[in-house]
Amino acid sequence: MIIAEAEQHQHQIDLAMIENAAQRINGRAVKTPLLEAPLFNEFLGLRVLFKPECLQKTGSFKFRGAYTKLSRLAEAEPGKPVVAFSSGNHAQGVAHAAQLLGLSCTIVMPDDAPVIKLENTRSYGANVVTYDRYTEDREAIAAAIAAETNAEIVRPFDDLDIMSGQGTTGLEIAKDAIEAGTRVDHVFCPAGGGGLLSGIALAVKSYMPDTSIWFAEPAGFDDVIRSLATGTRQDADFQTRTICDALLTKSVGVRPFKVIQEYVSGGFAISDDEALSAMFLAFQYLKVVVEPGGAAAFAALLQQRERFADSTVAVVLSGGNVDPAVFSECLAKRGDVQRR
Amino acid sequence: MIIAEAEQHQHQIDLAMIENAAQRINGRAVKTPLLEAPLFNEFLGLRVLFKPECLQKTGSFKFRGAYTKLSRLAEAEPGKPVVAFSSGNHAQGVAHAAQLLGLSCTIVMPDDAPVIKLENTRSYGANVVTYDRYTEDREAIAAAIAAETNAEIVRPFDDLDIMSGQGTTGLEIAKDAIEAGTRVDHVFCPAGGGGLLSGIALAVKSYMPDTSIWFAEPAGFDDVIRSLATGTRQDADFQTRTICDALLTKSVGVRPFKVIQEYVSGGFAISDDEALSAMFLAFQYLKVVVEPGGAAAFAALLQQRERFADSTVAVVLSGGNVDPAVFSECLAKRGDVQRR
Repeated sequence: MIIAEAEQHQHQIDLAMIENAAQRINGRAVKTPLLEAPLFNEFLGLRVLFKPECLQKTGSFKFRGAYTKLSRLAEAEPGKPVVAFSSGNHAQGVAHAAQLLGLSCTIVMPDDAPVIKLENTRSYGANVVTYDRYTEDREAIAAAIAAETNAEIVRPFDDLDIMSGQGTTGLEIAKDAIEAGTRVDHVFCPAGGGGLLSGIALAVKSYMPDTSIWFAEPAGFDDVIRSLATGTRQDADFQTRTICDALLTKSVGVRPFKVIQEYVSGGFAISDDEALSAMFLAFQYLKVVVEPGGAAAFAALLQQRERFADSTVAVVLSGGNVDPAVFSECLAKRGDVQRR
Repeated sequence: MIIAEAEQHQHQIDLAMIENAAQRINGRAVKTPLLEAPLFNEFLGLRVLFKPECLQKTGSFKFRGAYTKLSRLAEAEPGKPVVAFSSGNHAQGVAHAAQLLGLSCTIVMPDDAPVIKLENTRSYGANVVTYDRYTEDREAIAAAIAAETNAEIVRPFDDLDIMSGQGTTGLEIAKDAIEAGTRVDHVFCPAGGGGLLSGIALAVKSYMPDTSIWFAEPAGFDDVIRSLATGTRQDADFQTRTICDALLTKSVGVRPFKVIQEYVSGGFAISDDEALSAMFLAFQYLKVVVEPGGAAAFAALLQQRERFADSTVAVVLSGGNVDPAVFSECLAKRGDVQRR
């Protein structure tokens, strides 16, 4: 009901909503630092400021939006339960936010989700309901639970509270850069449903209007690139495969897309190999663990390094929930990026 | 000459020196956040706040002390060159601090040091002089360079400027915990030459006198444990082997030892396997890359978890400069810690 009420007044996020979200998550979310590796800057011929959201609570930026949404909900309708469907980072973000706020929480997850993800979500105190992804519809299951228990459905990106929460990532980038006296020419961010990208774009453009915003998508899931080109929301190609599991969304959200059309300069599609190379370089130079989808924006910058030569770029490393086996793969492969 | 002058006034570090160091490194060093993994707290039956110095410039806390020392030197004797001997984290910390301050810098390194470490040190702009570790004496080489070039020798731990710089790590832990309203019962820190441990102990005890300070050493290199037991500085046993290369020091420094005797509660010796388990858990729950020596304090807490059950513990992860092959080993082994 929160969305509906908010929409009576508000059809799109604005800076005030993001500033309000920042106050809500203060002391609850990690204020992640901007990391810089001088050796890597020299190696690449660029100055890169990394925003490591892999260090965020629950291992990804998703906690920011979830906590923002749930804290607004808990104020407006105290004690209202929540339900979400996700096999990934959104599930953990919602579950932990609900735990901190004392809200009853149900997460609908596929029964073949990795055991570690099922276990983690339960460990945050959520009630996990599993479904067969080949025969059942998770949205219908979530809707039935919501109707039965009078619960609020917490959608992963097409939601103004979620978008404004994710936007706090951009607010922190802008404020930290301004405080340090650093001019940021470009911001690179991964795109799935567009919640993070739209929130960051609005926040960064509000403080630094001359900064350009770019995004990365896995090859085949380059629906946002095609949506911008055609001017209408396109679907991803689910026949293709990618290791960037965090970025597997059918299409960009309606609300995020409007913001992206207005504020974002363009996007780049990256391959699995490029994601693995970026993960290795983050290991080598930054000492952070990044999952494939979380490394997509960094991979895009590496791909486009000549175009962005000699500029200062902020790169969002959006999550770190990666299996040891996949991480071993990036270590064995190593980065094959050439020194400038 | 800075040490000699300082010692005319000052024989030991105090809180004012550490506060002054904090001002010097402000905006130069990363103010690392306190990270917490709610899942891991539940898993372990403890509340742990991690201080990830692996995210520090040059990949370890060593940059804090080096920048403090060199910025004081650059003020007192502008343009004076520096020389240091180290095959590891101290070399990179000194080289990068010198680069930022525009000081000429020579690092004496063994000729069989890993190529990546030689390359990194050169990339920070240092002049690297190699020696044969079986036939030559690095201290004599450094002393000869210092005499020839009128350079200041930057020692790794037995130095009040270095100790006060490393102590800023403890200052940040204390101030962040107090700001968050969190009572910290214990702090765990690795011990090599004692620069970090002594600085942290003094800073933490100044702000939180009821907090106990503990340290970790690799088995065989438990010279600080034996030094505290006997009341005199003991030597490490260099016949033993450890993967914790960052903690290979002959003995604790004279100045650090005095502080440790006064403020530190005790230490624990940890095995290679325990270090690898701690590295894996830091990967799994915190998404940070920690080197074996950097994980020693965490390994000690895991070893002693029953003794410290139900308390709140701050753990210093002191560095992240680890080869991919060694990191792969921790991923293959995984942590074998039992859920409480």
